[in-house]
Amino acid sequence: MERLCFGIDIGGTSVKLGLFTENGNLLDKWEIPTRREDSGSHILEDVAATVKKKIADDNLVRENIIGIGIGVPGPVTEDGTVINCVNLGWGIFNVSEETEKLTGFKTRVGNDANVAALGEMWQGGGRGYKNLIMVTLGTGVGGGVILNGEILTGSNGAAGEIGHITVNPSEEDKCNCGRPGCLEQFASATGIVKEAKRLLDKSKEPSKLREIQHLSAKAIFDCAKEGDALANELVEELCRYLALALSHIAHVVDPEAFVIGGGVSKAGTMLTDLTKKFYENNVLFALKNKDFKLAELGNDAGIYGSAKLIIGK
Amino acid sequence: MERLCFGIDIGGTSVKLGLFTENGNLLDKWEIPTRREDSGSHILEDVAATVKKKIADDNLVRENIIGIGIGVPGPVTEDGTVINCVNLGWGIFNVSEETEKLTGFKTRVGNDANVAALGEMWQGGGRGYKNLIMVTLGTGVGGGVILNGEILTGSNGAAGEIGHITVNPSEEDKCNCGRPGCLEQFASATGIVKEAKRLLDKSKEPSKLREIQHLSAKAIFDCAKEGDALANELVEELCRYLALALSHIAHVVDPEAFVIGGGVSKAGTMLTDLTKKFYENNVLFALKNKDFKLAELGNDAGIYGSAKLIIGK
Repeated sequence: MERLCFGIDIGGTSVKLGLFTENGNLLDKWEIPTRREDSGSHILEDVAATVKKKIADDNLVRENIIGIGIGVPGPVTEDGTVINCVNLGWGIFNVSEETEKLTGFKTRVGNDANVAALGEMWQGGGRGYKNLIMVTLGTGVGGGVILNGEILTGSNGAAGEIGHITVNPSEEDKCNCGRPGCLEQFASATGIVKEAKRLLDKSKEPSKLREIQHLSAKAIFDCAKEGDALANELVEELCRYLALALSHIAHVVDPEAFVIGGGVSKAGTMLTDLTKKFYENNVLFALKNKDFKLAELGNDAGIYGSAKLIIGK
Repeated sequence: MERLCFGIDIGGTSVKLGLFTENGNLLDKWEIPTRREDSGSHILEDVAATVKKKIADDNLVRENIIGIGIGVPGPVTEDGTVINCVNLGWGIFNVSEETEKLTGFKTRVGNDANVAALGEMWQGGGRGYKNLIMVTLGTGVGGGVILNGEILTGSNGAAGEIGHITVNPSEEDKCNCGRPGCLEQFASATGIVKEAKRLLDKSKEPSKLREIQHLSAKAIFDCAKEGDALANELVEELCRYLALALSHIAHVVDPEAFVIGGGVSKAGTMLTDLTKKFYENNVLFALKNKDFKLAELGNDAGIYGSAKLIIGK
């Protein structure tokens, strides 16, 4: 009988759970709300309860379950200790040990962005690669570094914090992290909208963007595809900054591929093609010709990656 | 009896060799010239001959020798294949296999800058760390990434090519690599001299630097230490660009420490202190407080690291 495991992605508003086979088939998925009250102290209790209920409801054989993988929104060290998950109200404690105590299952924990990268490598846009960089362009910009098939955690759990690479040292507005010039300020969904407002104020050129009441990354990419000059300027700027950050990363780890996900990546190959074009101008000869892929798992990347975390290589 | 190994550093003009104990004692070191004629086809023959001679001269017991580690000036893949060592005249071939055939000893091969990083981790400025970045500020700027005690090679052997991270996208002069704006153009010994000439041409300020006929990185740092304003401006610029590149690296791999070597690092703690100061302004909170160390092994880093390569973790 094929063994099973749970892949769990704890977010600020909901906890996503998946029941997987060892080979990567998602048998079932569901969500529960994230109870943030009392410093988030009920979150893991709720996770344990819903896992136990699933086992009972489906008559799963306990001995057949490998364990539980969990992704959390914050830095995590190799042993599963979270440092500060602001969105969950958590301080410093060992999530692996706590979950093992509550469920009796072996547990491994990773940062949510890192885990999503692992998920894309396993069953998504990064299938077939063992060394890749995933960048998630959403409300913010997250990242994950996969080397030799495993997450690179870093000495303080802060490896892959790609969104906070400085790409524009002369920027004056501050990023959410408190410093100015981060990739997140230019390549996130919120970043490109902010840049659009700046450009529309500054430029006198006509643009379809001026007619849109609630600008969004999607609207900007759509207008760019229709040939709108200002929208294309914005898309180029985003891709140029993203390519610069990816070129920095390439000179450090020389990956096989880049996988781009998050809401902004719905723009599709326009995003990857243009980013690749700028990237090629920014790197040594030996680092050219990397593969640029779109993520495929969407919001499920986290549960896939968490499952892979506990399954191992 | 403690086991022994050879650590070998093949450079464009000479091959450095060291005989080491497994625990890192350098028993003897010597050099032979690098014969670059005939596409460098005699280099490994010469290495094999001098190794055999050493074994005979010192009456070493063959069974007591672990093997040979080699550093070469160019990209090398995990299996020991060199891609293009321009300085040696080498094309594409497997240096490990060739050396094993010529000597009968197990051989491992790495890029010279990566191997130097491993050497500094083992017996130099990086002792006690398992995750570090080494930057060598010499005629060019080289780098090495050590993760979990081992060299990160990268998918094409180009990991740690730190000197070619773009730090100034608006620079117009080209680096040796053919692109403009690389760290090497600002943080190498040749880079700071070039920047000095630029600044002296542009500025009308008096400076001791104007009296020096043959400007060097050392002279610039010496003048800076004596309080010369223009020299300090140049040192600040170098440290600012270096710190920017190190901050990029930190957001990717989150190392424990940075080790700075090469001729420019003879400037000492002035270099590390100022670079650390600028670095702290460029990184996320979780990446602050890294250790900044000076390299300690000088030109021997390569033979130490090559020895460690064959000894393993």
